[in-house]
Order: sequence, then C-alpha cells, then structure tokens
Amino acid sequence: MSNTFKTGDMVRCTLEGLSCDGKFISSQNGMATIKLASGYNIGIPEENLVKTGTSELPERKATEIVQNTRLPKISIISTGGTIASKKDYRTGAVTSQFQAADILDAIPGLASLAQFRAVQVSNILSENMKPGIWKLLARAIHDEIKEGAQGILVTHGTDTMAYSAAAISLMLKTPVPVVFVGSQRSADRPSSDNIMNGLCAAKTALSDLGEVVVVMHGTTNDDVCAIHRGTKVRKMHTSRRDAFQTIGDEIIGSVGYPSLEVSLASHAVKRGTNKLDLRDKLEEKCAIVWYYPGMDPAILSAWNGYRGIVLAGTGLGHVQTDMVATIREMTEAGTTFVMVSQCLHGRVCDRVYDTGRDLLSAGVIEGEDMLPEVALVKLMWVLGNSKSREEVRMLMESNLAGEIKRRSSV
Amino acid sequence: MSNTFKTGDMVRCTLEGLSCDGKFISSQNGMATIKLASGYNIGIPEENLVKTGTSELPERKATEIVQNTRLPKISIISTGGTIASKKDYRTGAVTSQFQAADILDAIPGLASLAQFRAVQVSNILSENMKPGIWKLLARAIHDEIKEGAQGILVTHGTDTMAYSAAAISLMLKTPVPVVFVGSQRSADRPSSDNIMNGLCAAKTALSDLGEVVVVMHGTTNDDVCAIHRGTKVRKMHTSRRDAFQTIGDEIIGSVGYPSLEVSLASHAVKRGTNKLDLRDKLEEKCAIVWYYPGMDPAILSAWNGYRGIVLAGTGLGHVQTDMVATIREMTEAGTTFVMVSQCLHGRVCDRVYDTGRDLLSAGVIEGEDMLPEVALVKLMWVLGNSKSREEVRMLMESNLAGEIKRRSSV
Repeated sequence: MSNTFKTGDMVRCTLEGLSCDGKFISSQNGMATIKLASGYNIGIPEENLVKTGTSELPERKATEIVQNTRLPKISIISTGGTIASKKDYRTGAVTSQFQAADILDAIPGLASLAQFRAVQVSNILSENMKPGIWKLLARAIHDEIKEGAQGILVTHGTDTMAYSAAAISLMLKTPVPVVFVGSQRSADRPSSDNIMNGLCAAKTALSDLGEVVVVMHGTTNDDVCAIHRGTKVRKMHTSRRDAFQTIGDEIIGSVGYPSLEVSLASHAVKRGTNKLDLRDKLEEKCAIVWYYPGMDPAILSAWNGYRGIVLAGTGLGHVQTDMVATIREMTEAGTTFVMVSQCLHGRVCDRVYDTGRDLLSAGVIEGEDMLPEVALVKLMWVLGNSKSREEVRMLMESNLAGEIKRRSSV
Repeated sequence: MSNTFKTGDMVRCTLEGLSCDGKFISSQNGMATIKLASGYNIGIPEENLVKTGTSELPERKATEIVQNTRLPKISIISTGGTIASKKDYRTGAVTSQFQAADILDAIPGLASLAQFRAVQVSNILSENMKPGIWKLLARAIHDEIKEGAQGILVTHGTDTMAYSAAAISLMLKTPVPVVFVGSQRSADRPSSDNIMNGLCAAKTALSDLGEVVVVMHGTTNDDVCAIHRGTKVRKMHTSRRDAFQTIGDEIIGSVGYPSLEVSLASHAVKRGTNKLDLRDKLEEKCAIVWYYPGMDPAILSAWNGYRGIVLAGTGLGHVQTDMVATIREMTEAGTTFVMVSQCLHGRVCDRVYDTGRDLLSAGVIEGEDMLPEVALVKLMWVLGNSKSREEVRMLMESNLAGEIKRRSSV
C-alpha cells in the first residue's frame, strides 16, 4: 500500500498533459488504482497523483424494508461475485456482508415481487469456485426448497457461473426454478446490469419453470433477459452484458424488460415435473485437457491416477495419433476419458476418421454435444455416484439434465 | 481386419428388421465400417452383414489436362485432410497421391482460372499437425512465392487449420494471398463443399489481397464463401460447412458463388503491401493450459521447464488465487505466461479484480483479445525469435499480424 495516499482519498491524476479526478483505492509497487467518477478503474503511477481531499467515508444507509408476508417466498443464496459486491472504498476489496435487506436495498422493485430469505454459502470471486462449494450450494438450495421456497435465486460471479449451473443441474432434481444470476458490471458503474438481471431472475424464480437456469441480459439493449438451461450455457464474452449464450440448443425462455413478462419455450421443464432430490457426491480427481498441435504426448502422465479426464479435441473429437497408446494404458489403469470438441458447437463423432476409431478402440467415450465444462462436472458427478465402468459409460452417454441433445438443431 | 469380407465388397446390412446396401471398408473387433450409397459411413457388427457382390476396383481415370500457360500462376501446397482425400475403397484409408492433375480433376473449373503447380509438404489428418510441419509449409510457401506464384492455395484438414493459418501468418510476411482451404465433407458425399471452397479459394488467391487467410463456406446455402484473417478465425462447429468464423473482428472479404466475385473489406491487407520475408523459428516447448474449477494447483508443476504457457482463464482472464504463487515461481524460473479468456470473445483485462492484479504482479502477460490457439502459436514464434524477456513481453502485447485488435468492434 501507499505511504502517501489513503483509500478513499480524493486525487487528481495528471498524465501527458491530461488530468482527471478520482478516488484512490490502493497501490502496489508504486502503481495506484484510481476509481473515476464514471465507475471505471484506471492504473496510474503514484507520482502522477496529487491529493485534493481527504477520505470521505459514507455512512452505510440500510433502508428499513418491511416484507409483505402474503407474497410468494424466494430464497436468495449468495456465493459472492460482482452482483453481490458493495462499494467499499475503505478497503478497496469486494465485500458481501450479505443480508436480504442488502439485496432489497440494492435492487429496488424486488420487494414488491416476493418475500425474500437470504442464505450465504460463500463469499468468493467465482474464479475461486470449487467442487466443495457446489456441495454446500446444492444442500442449501435443497433445504430452502424443502422449507417452502417457491423459487431460488443464486447470486454468482459470472466467471464460473456456467460450470456451477451445470453442477447443480446434475446434483439436484428440483420441482421449482433454480435461477443463477450475476452481473457483468459492478453496481457502481452506470452501465451496471445488476438491477435488470435481478428483477428478471426473480420473475423467473416465480414462473412455471422446474429446472436449473441462468438468467442474464439477452441483448445489450436492456430490453430482454434470456433464460438459459444450466447445462447448455456458456460465458462467451469477457465483458459484454449479453455474454451468456445457449450453445447447441434454443434458449428456454425470456423475460421482457421493464414489463418483466416471462415467456417459456415448449422444451422448458415445467414446475412440479421433478421431485426434490439431492445427490451431492462428486469425484474431484477430474480434469479438462485441451489438445493443441505440438502437445507432447508425455504430458498425459501428469494426470496419472486421475479418475476422469475430459479431452477437448479438435473437430469431430480428435487428438494426435501419438497419444492414443497412452490413453489406452491410462484407461486400462482406471481413468475414464470423455471426448468433447473445442469447436464448442456441434457433436463429437469418432466414427468418421481413423484417429477417432482408434480413440474409441482405446476406450474413449464420445461426449456427444456436451460443452467441455459441462462434461467435466458431469464426469465428476457420474464418477462420484457410480461404481461400475459400464454404468459410468452408460450415464456419460445418456442425457441426464438436458446436457445432451439427441439431434442438434443448431 | 475381417476374415470374411474384403475392402470394396458389396454387402447387405440387416439390423432389427431394417436392411440397406453398402460397401465394406474395414472392421475392428467384429465391428464393420460400411459406406452407404449416400456417402455416409455406418458402424455395424459383422454378423449383421451378408456379402452380395465382390470387390469392384474402379480404374483411376486421370483426365489429361493441358494447362493454359497464359493464365496467372497459383501454387497449391498440400498438407492432407478431407479436401485432398480420394475415395480409396481398397484400403479404406485416406490417401493423397497429390498432383496438380488430381486437384484439377477433382475440382472442375479450376483449370480456367489459373495455371497450377502442386507441392506436397505432408499427408496427414490435421489433428496430427505439428510445429515441424508448419516450418516445412512456411518454407514451401516462401519458395513458391519467390519463384513467381501470384497466389498460394494451402489445402489443409479443418481440425487444426486455424492453428496453422495463425502460425503461417506470423512466420511469413507475404506480398500475395496465402489462402488456406479445406472441406468439412469428403468428396464422396453429396453435400461435399470441396468444389465450391476450392473455386472460391482460387479466386481469392488471384485477388488484391496480401495476407494469410482462410476461405470456407460462409453460410450453409452454397451462396458465399467467407474470407477470414488467419489470426482471427476459429473452427466453431464440428460438422457444419460454415464452421469457420471470424472472432472479435469483421470478416475481411467474401466470394460470391457461383459468380466467384471477390469483395474485400477496407481492413484487408492489400497485395504488395508486405515484402516477402520468412522467419521460421519456433519454440515448441509451449502449452495451452485450460483452467477449470477444482483444478489442483499442483498440476502446474507438470509444465516445469516449459518456455511458454498460454493460460485459458475464466472471464476477463482469471485463475484461482491458489495458483498465483506457483505461477510467480515458474515465471521467475523462466516460463512466460500469457493469459487469454476461455470466453473466446472479448478482451482480457486483469486490472479490474484482485485476482487479475495478483496475476499481473506475478508476471503474467495479458493476451488482449487473442484467441487461445493464436496466443499459443504466437508464443512459440516470439520465444523462438527473441532472446530477452522484455522483447518477449513487448512482442506478445503488440499486434504483429492482425492477432490483436486494439478496440474490439464486437
């Protein structure tokens, strides 16, 4: 940290004749991070800063919110991430002292839709998500539904939201909507998507759905949120608000904004279709191995002893011929290999070319049209819940939660 | 192989009351591969086959083609792949006894566009592509241009075509079009795209372009081929003919079909802009490491001693905090880490969240908006051609061949 500036100090930044004002957040090795009035952060050498005012610590003003007990019940389960973050200029850190009042305070309009309960299972940036937290999350969702929640909101960082949504899709059968929601821009930025995403997600949690979904901006126009099946969705842009896309299927619904009207597609699973059921075992000794030209076949030995490996191969599902013998040996030693394609779209088929036929003969399971991240969490779940090789293969090749579509429409 | 059937035998397949006719290609462990009249292959147990006729080996009928020496010169450089494959029912294997006459024979209409020379640098399925073959390919292209070729066609399997196009984009500065082309469906299938792709690629090779591009179907309607910059293109579908897409930029042109009219966008590099220059050194000790929740931080030690690692992180470019210390140690020991995003679209920015700032402080280089595969071949090339760490960082952060777009338009 700086010896000259304190977090919250007002500073003027001058660089190459230009200047602007902002708030000092932190510094490292002489490089300061400054929050501009626009909400964006910039990095600038400390020597280019002049202090113009002292730290103003705003009093936290929690609105007193009286919940209407005649409204349906939604439980908000928080894991951390941008949507749960608060502006804390004192530490510069993302914090999430999470209470229902905070969410109701942050997203005006929620209180008129439902009555809310809040549960925090973790407070992490989502790149630090781990299978162990998926277990806590699955249990928390299960318990909230059991206790009468008519829908679940899971607030989650966007980085690994698709992995988590797929994991919960497999670990939990749900009769009510389980809606993952996040935001791509923090609440202190004018373009923040947290309010619209939060409202659309809450309406989805009250809808006629009965499955695990992700609700995020459908366009950049603030006019519609898309409802994505938890096993068919992927973050496809680093920063756009409509970063989440359904891959290899149609979206299962949408929520208009500001109308908040929910439309569900015919392939959406309806509320009450499934009975509540939790199976939270996961085999964590699993990996994604991304193939590329020039990969040293010997590197595969790094995963000796792993129970499952998702190979992200090229095209229809290929890796170099030089790796087939090792894959065969590792399979015989007990590792399950599942092939997916780094194309992301389309279906694996290892029956067309010689390389593919060799891989099948070595014991590799075709991952059909599963996304790599979905195949990974499914492999963790299947290996955690099955004892026989035959059952593992059969389950990996079966559609359990919408992750395999028998005929690709797109 | 089978003791009962020979390659080329006519067989009737019967399964669950249905039957169809085809040609026996090969079998493995009692499972036969049969080519149907439609051109598609099916797998079926040998016990469900009855031989209905003997092998008919068609005489290869090479058309005698007289080339018009007044037409411009195109060199076709073959690496293998579906577009170069011939129907050889005798071995079931993909073969490519490659001569100009074969290509002119396979793609009627080419002979009226140019006079062709053929060079074969490899005959592989492209999942077996290696950096060593990129060197052969770069040298062959260089030599053909030096000897007067007005355009280059590179026939290549689609699996790793984007990796190879990016590699050649960096290894070779070219004054003429270097056009990668492939096909998603083999020539014996009615939906084959080899003729249209071949003709559109040849016209692109004669156009006013002066850079390395990929030319493939732009839609599924057989009406237009897209011209993609070699450093911004990716195979985005396992089987569709319009599988190749430009990511993070606009396409640089298109070729109408059957008009074969070439339109170039304003950001296309024009013929003659660059002088011919070959720099074919590559550091092969490089890898792509795809991050996922649950990754054991200890796995990173598998790449100890590697000169370069492309980390495909989540979102804006993140991996779990638990990996930062090891990344710092490996960087200090001489490994260059470059961060890209598994979102594929958008730009890496490690200045927004704490995890990113920690990664930058550990020495990780932001890969801007580079695709993972492009970052990999660029890292191979930069490490092969630079000696100092400062130069490696500077080159990785600079746009050398269109691989970094300063402001993302999409």
